[in-house]
Amino acid sequence: MNETLKSLADVLEQRKSASGESSYVASLYERGLNKILEKVGEEATEAILAAKDCQEGADAGQAVIEETADLWFHSLVMLAYLDLRPEQVLEELEKRFNISGLDEKASRHN
Amino acid sequence: MNETLKSLADVLEQRKSASGESSYVASLYERGLNKILEKVGEEATEAILAAKDCQEGADAGQAVIEETADLWFHSLVMLAYLDLRPEQVLEELEKRFNISGLDEKASRHN
Amino acid sequence: MNETLKSLADVLEQRKSASGESSYVASLYERGLNKILEKVGEEATEAILAAKDCQEGADAGQAVIEETADLWFHSLVMLAYLDLRPEQVLEELEKRFNISGLDEKASRHN
Amino acid sequence: MNETLKSLADVLEQRKSASGESSYVASLYERGLNKILEKVGEEATEAILAAKDCQEGADAGQAVIEETADLWFHSLVMLAYLDLRPEQVLEELEKRFNISGLDEKASRHN
Repeated sequence: MNETLKSLADVLEQRKSASGESSYVASLYERGLNKILEKVGEEATEAILAAKDCQEGADAGQAVIEETADLWFHSLVMLAYLDLRPEQVLEELEKRFNISGLDEKASRHN
Repeated sequence: MNETLKSLADVLEQRKSASGESSYVASLYERGLNKILEKVGEEATEAILAAKDCQEGADAGQAVIEETADLWFHSLVMLAYLDLRPEQVLEELEKRFNISGLDEKASRHN
Repeated sequence: MNETLKSLADVLEQRKSASGESSYVASLYERGLNKILEKVGEEATEAILAAKDCQEGADAGQAVIEETADLWFHSLVMLAYLDLRPEQVLEELEKRFNISGLDEKASRHN
Repeated sequence: MNETLKSLADVLEQRKSASGESSYVASLYERGLNKILEKVGEEATEAILAAKDCQEGADAGQAVIEETADLWFHSLVMLAYLDLRPEQVLEELEKRFNISGLDEKASRHN
């Protein structure tokens, strides 16, 4: 379950041993935590702007999808930099909402 | 796969028919897109601050996990409000990183 | 010159000796730097949203003015908390743009 | 009074007729409101990060000054783009705090 985020976190972990020239993620690690957090803030703003523009056209939803992907991606880089895992975030969400990755029925108890 | 985010999105969809008094999410829907986007921006800032404080103590990682959960949660509310799904965001991430929710081997091709 | 920001900074300085119950600013100081910075992030998001809505109506400009006032105000609180002064920010701006608070002619050399 | 921000706003007004190649500000206008607002969000995040690092060294205050200058500057560009003036923001602040650009005594009545 939750394979995409887990797979992506595994990729991000592997990139820790790559050089900054060969990989965007490795270059973020090298530039340090502030640079990674600047990207989180930047992508949050861009997602917000895309959402505001979303009513305006047929493809506008796609921009929100892409900016949200950027936001989640850079928050995964932040987690990786701090040796944290997306599974911990998902567990936190499951706990709060009483849902389980294994038991989709939970979402019917609303 | 990616069950947690899907289950959560299902819950968020169901809350569209709830009253704002009975549910935090329904109250966000009622207050409208700007209120939801304010929360996205707010949680991004709080995640950034938690990450900056993360070196400072044993439980500091937990604060980052919780704030990232808040950030992802409110971006899921934003997606639901705009009739978009987290699966679309995950597909976008899979496409970019050449990974597949079904095929975890992909993460080894780094 | 630049009296409003200076006067406001003087007020903010004086509030350092007030109790959190008697003054919003004093309550921000008591809650600490993270709380103040959360407000800076929050007001930036609100200014951005007001600007996006600005085309839509006659009074929309007023919302941008108010949110920008909130943003500048909370950045003044941040400066005060760190024992910095708005005059330093204004000097930095003057230096960059080769303008002087005393010499408005500078703005004609564009 | 408040000459620096006024002079800067005058400069920003003049740049509306400049070409994007000759001036950073003109290039921002050309790229449109979203680009300007992205910069506001970005500079807010950078100011927040600088403030978090401010305890750590002798020159750290200078980074906060510079990032706050960036934040105020880009919010002035936002105002100019929307045909609003910093004087309106300063008036709003004066009204709220019962201070006057002409009457600095006001700041003593705290």
